[in-house]
Amino acid sequence: MTSPSSTKYNAETLRNSLIQRAKELETTLDKMLPRMKSGEANLMEAMRYAVLGGGKRLRGYLVTEVASLFDYPLSKALYVGASVEMLHAYSLIHDDLPAMDDDDLRRGKPSTHIKYGEAIAILAGDALQTKAFELIAMEEAHEDAMVRIQLVQALAEASGSRGMVGGQVIDMEGENSHLTLPEVLNLHAMKTGRLICYSAEAGAILGNATPDLHNHIISYGRDLGTAFQIADDVLDATASAEELGKTAGKDGAAGKSTFVSLLGIEDARKEADRLVAKAIRHLEPFGDTADNLRALAEYVVYRKN
Amino acid sequence: MTSPSSTKYNAETLRNSLIQRAKELETTLDKMLPRMKSGEANLMEAMRYAVLGGGKRLRGYLVTEVASLFDYPLSKALYVGASVEMLHAYSLIHDDLPAMDDDDLRRGKPSTHIKYGEAIAILAGDALQTKAFELIAMEEAHEDAMVRIQLVQALAEASGSRGMVGGQVIDMEGENSHLTLPEVLNLHAMKTGRLICYSAEAGAILGNATPDLHNHIISYGRDLGTAFQIADDVLDATASAEELGKTAGKDGAAGKSTFVSLLGIEDARKEADRLVAKAIRHLEPFGDTADNLRALAEYVVYRKN
Repeated sequence: MTSPSSTKYNAETLRNSLIQRAKELETTLDKMLPRMKSGEANLMEAMRYAVLGGGKRLRGYLVTEVASLFDYPLSKALYVGASVEMLHAYSLIHDDLPAMDDDDLRRGKPSTHIKYGEAIAILAGDALQTKAFELIAMEEAHEDAMVRIQLVQALAEASGSRGMVGGQVIDMEGENSHLTLPEVLNLHAMKTGRLICYSAEAGAILGNATPDLHNHIISYGRDLGTAFQIADDVLDATASAEELGKTAGKDGAAGKSTFVSLLGIEDARKEADRLVAKAIRHLEPFGDTADNLRALAEYVVYRKN
Repeated sequence: MTSPSSTKYNAETLRNSLIQRAKELETTLDKMLPRMKSGEANLMEAMRYAVLGGGKRLRGYLVTEVASLFDYPLSKALYVGASVEMLHAYSLIHDDLPAMDDDDLRRGKPSTHIKYGEAIAILAGDALQTKAFELIAMEEAHEDAMVRIQLVQALAEASGSRGMVGGQVIDMEGENSHLTLPEVLNLHAMKTGRLICYSAEAGAILGNATPDLHNHIISYGRDLGTAFQIADDVLDATASAEELGKTAGKDGAAGKSTFVSLLGIEDARKEADRLVAKAIRHLEPFGDTADNLRALAEYVVYRKN
């Protein structure tokens, strides 16, 4: 968005860490979604198509990187990171359906319903949601059942009717009607923010964080989520489909109220900058070990897609 | 199916118990899905429409009645019973969508997508699945987190790609192709049987059953599930839409392989009778306290809708 020279944390170190982690998440996802030969093989192929082979893995990165602040083993945190990537992929499949956003393109490839048909796409989304809950309930994710139950509770809250899905409904019903800034903030806090915040929180839950540090992480996740969405609106208004890997300029065309339509591009960028700085301040108690998470907050806003 | 005089257990006692339990489940569902005034109010109305106001509540009854064999408090088991009813309702919403079975009628009322539109119907199904996991993760369901995690694991296994959703895919892809009897058995064991079996198993999990009694309950649930599906095929072939509260004769019209098309009506009825007797035998260790579950096995096969 603004010039990369305005970033303070090491973007190169973050980039390498993101790439490495994305590979590890991909390996975990591949292992947890084994190909099948039976009648439901096609379902599993669609699930794999939707969740493997691409994406920035921001949510899975957040889970594992926050967990590492508390010295929680990466090998275990990866299951929880893979779980949130499945949850995210399910929401994208259903979002892209003709009855919803009707989007043929996702991550530069045909959407799941274009490739596998609508029925399989609906069911692949359903099964990915189920699998996301299955992964965080596995002993491999955490030996303590109480911790796993906390993850289930937090994921359900973040993704259900008062979280992501509720936000999608508000988004749909708000099309072609004018929303105020607080309404747009609430909509995105639910639709996108809650799952991003959950991803950070899940790392703190795994790491058995003290209530104080837990709150710091939640505050970081909340500001990061809002900054992410503002940056998304700016990208949607300014970038090309080729850069985005998905249809560009859709929100404006759909007559949606966005941060850009409400604030203008310049003020939207300033608000994103302010939130990045605020997100970074919440990480103070963690010292240098949180530098990748600081660089991530900058990356989320200064990314090109 | 056959004459009610062939039943051995008290159908009247069961009927009263089912009606009473359905009311209690309905009250729990109503409480757990509170109406909202905000932008997502419509989503919650669709969720309530799909899950409240009707249905036999067989799955919720199974959970609570099996739990009572182990003296587990009904007030707590009702959350788990309500959870499986939500899971079942989500599957019905998605099943009825135009891209799937394209059914306009459910329980004698317009399907959820007819009443609320496709987009809201998809999302209401999604949110009901989430809520189903949320309910069994609540402390109110069971104080021991390990028990709740076992419920999450069992529900995910029963309803995901190797359970209910996988069965729906096999069912769809099997349309207009000839399936053998073992294939039809496997299809229904996945599509319908697994969730019915889970419902019985959930009661045993709540009640902290010994491995031996746990296995008896699973065997009961498995035979009950198959008997239920055979009876469903017979009803689909013989009953009217008015009696069923949904479109009748669909399977034959869709060229699906069913127990009736493979065995004929008489032999299908005989196989259902055999499974009912087998299901009842698995309940032997529980003595008279399991009489409602025995009557339920008879009811499942001799019902008219």
